[in-house]
Amino acid sequence: MEFKIEACHSGTEARVGVLHTPHGEVRTPAFVAVATRGTVKALSADDVRALGIQILIGNTYHLTLRPGAEVVGALGGLHGFSGWDGPWMTDSGGFQVFSLGAGKEHGVGKIASIFPGEAPPKPTGPSLVKLTEEGARFRSVVDGAWVFFSPEEVIRAQRLLGADVILPLDECTSPFHDRAYTEAAMERTHRWAERALKAFRDTQGLGPNPDQALFGIVQGGAYEDLRRRSAREIAGMNFPGFAIGGSLGRSKEDMFRVIEWTVEELPKEKPRHLLGIGTVEDIVEAVKRGIDTFDCAAPTRMARNGTLLSAREEGFRLNIKGARFRRDDRPIEEGCDCPTCRRYSRAFLHHLLRSGELSYFRLATLHNLRFMVRLMAAIRARIASGGEISVEHVMEELLA
Amino acid sequence: MEFKIEACHSGTEARVGVLHTPHGEVRTPAFVAVATRGTVKALSADDVRALGIQILIGNTYHLTLRPGAEVVGALGGLHGFSGWDGPWMTDSGGFQVFSLGAGKEHGVGKIASIFPGEAPPKPTGPSLVKLTEEGARFRSVVDGAWVFFSPEEVIRAQRLLGADVILPLDECTSPFHDRAYTEAAMERTHRWAERALKAFRDTQGLGPNPDQALFGIVQGGAYEDLRRRSAREIAGMNFPGFAIGGSLGRSKEDMFRVIEWTVEELPKEKPRHLLGIGTVEDIVEAVKRGIDTFDCAAPTRMARNGTLLSAREEGFRLNIKGARFRRDDRPIEEGCDCPTCRRYSRAFLHHLLRSGELSYFRLATLHNLRFMVRLMAAIRARIASGGEISVEHVMEELLA
Repeated sequence: MEFKIEACHSGTEARVGVLHTPHGEVRTPAFVAVATRGTVKALSADDVRALGIQILIGNTYHLTLRPGAEVVGALGGLHGFSGWDGPWMTDSGGFQVFSLGAGKEHGVGKIASIFPGEAPPKPTGPSLVKLTEEGARFRSVVDGAWVFFSPEEVIRAQRLLGADVILPLDECTSPFHDRAYTEAAMERTHRWAERALKAFRDTQGLGPNPDQALFGIVQGGAYEDLRRRSAREIAGMNFPGFAIGGSLGRSKEDMFRVIEWTVEELPKEKPRHLLGIGTVEDIVEAVKRGIDTFDCAAPTRMARNGTLLSAREEGFRLNIKGARFRRDDRPIEEGCDCPTCRRYSRAFLHHLLRSGELSYFRLATLHNLRFMVRLMAAIRARIASGGEISVEHVMEELLA
Repeated sequence: MEFKIEACHSGTEARVGVLHTPHGEVRTPAFVAVATRGTVKALSADDVRALGIQILIGNTYHLTLRPGAEVVGALGGLHGFSGWDGPWMTDSGGFQVFSLGAGKEHGVGKIASIFPGEAPPKPTGPSLVKLTEEGARFRSVVDGAWVFFSPEEVIRAQRLLGADVILPLDECTSPFHDRAYTEAAMERTHRWAERALKAFRDTQGLGPNPDQALFGIVQGGAYEDLRRRSAREIAGMNFPGFAIGGSLGRSKEDMFRVIEWTVEELPKEKPRHLLGIGTVEDIVEAVKRGIDTFDCAAPTRMARNGTLLSAREEGFRLNIKGARFRRDDRPIEEGCDCPTCRRYSRAFLHHLLRSGELSYFRLATLHNLRFMVRLMAAIRARIASGGEISVEHVMEELLA
């Protein structure tokens, strides 16, 4: 795994680079499309290729439950099994520790969008996770059985899945966890990182991909001293790259500060991934603060819900369900080169979604992911040209 | 609309031909893929094109309810609206007269598969249709409102939808309707056919496609004298082509006899469409009896349910849900040239279906429709070569 920085932006921490993986190059900053169970929802691997998507991220938790890491490993790993033979990442299941655990108890995501003084949200359900020093016990979403994930098990599973970039099991804390809990969880995450590194060395040769890279995950919540300590300790373990996990605080400003603290403590020459973040504004602001790659389910999930991305719309989105699109014969976004905009009108997409036609989901997903590809290309162009980087400037570049 | 018969098979009624439509040629015998609401479920128009599908059939009932024939007409008709600018047919809503009416009351489809003496099935619900001489009143599946379809309205709607081949409103009777009811319904269908022809002349110039062809529909149930009379009377109205509607009796043998009686009374030089039939055996047997085109939702619906077509399997199908496919790294059908078989294993499709991934539906549909395209090509080759026509011979040709 080699990461080559090709140009640094003057005035910000942004840089353009190339991540060389055993299955191809990734030009950064890059958007990593989410393929939780081995496929981008509603798309095929050929679709992904045609869109210009460079890298996918699967999920160790989901793939371990079904079809099982052994099955995927026996069929050539994710590269052989899924039809996508380009670069793969896998997330460790650490986010599920949160989303099925404290996230449910606290009724919250990675960022708690509440106003200061506002009451915290209600639980969305009981925790399905039990955490100990040894690892995480999960209630399976497939059959309700309890399954155990240790840092070692998660590495073994990812060896079989065979992604090019893999991640250690961590504990993603909640924005509503207090400092003491966040610190203790962080320290455990560091101990798990050491165990993961050892397991990674011990399993060399297992699975279909001998050249995997294990990145370290930085935790520490939205507490400056914890984030800086976590970044320094994880950086000290000599991982070839890093990921920044949640909690990212209670606002966008919190999130941007967390990124700044973390990036300041990480070595400049290694790649930095921001886990689970992906709105236009978040990406532009995070790139300026030195982030190289992003994964986020939002563009594909929004597509399925009717929210289509466009540089020409207020908030960069339109909801195709709206009655005003019933007779609108324009493409989603004028000038967009995606397969959907090249052939279909808003009126047809509106009709497909209103009728519950399966065809809708693919056409909408194709558009939103192509938007993300265009967005990242515009960001890279903007960095390389040395111009000012802002959402407005990037959108101008995208439409040029 | 010109239909050119290129070769007749000696020993059977089978023929190969070309149907010239305003939007392209259809080589017959051909399978017409079902696109009820303007799209083949789970596919895009580009997919349909890449598969070699020649012609689609939309549904006037469904498209009138949503998005409305006016909306489709204003956006260029089905050819402009849907992205599929090749040949289109539209069904009249006559099948919905049955499927939402007597079909529910009788708990039955076009062919009642019961053994002689067996009790008839139970109703599946109350009728949502009221029939009068004037037309059919339907309970809308979209919003529950009553909507009225007259033979004239159905022609007007199809003028706006703009398909190349359109059909008059008819009454598709049930296999459990008695002779008297079937005869009265048939006579009304004939009166509706006359009204449709007049409405078709009166609306010349309406809608996006000035060169539409209105085919006649033959009814008469499984009663020989009624079928022959219906075929003669409909043939006497000088339609440029014909469709055979249900009921088709209580067994495959009934259906094949109905086709024989009907074809004997129809002019040789005009095209013959069999509505809503599409298993491998039914198609081969119907082609031998002189049928040129077929539409059927089964191949696409079966795909979505996990039933994948293959010339190499017992009954020409396998159910990909089966646990035995969990680690099966072979394609659905060895040698199949569809986009799914070229890249994906049975194990991956099994995983996608078990996981409820949307990607599954498209990949499965692509395979099943490509199978239908290959099947029809094999049938045409078999007719042209003058060899014996049977399911076995056609499958041999398909695999050659």
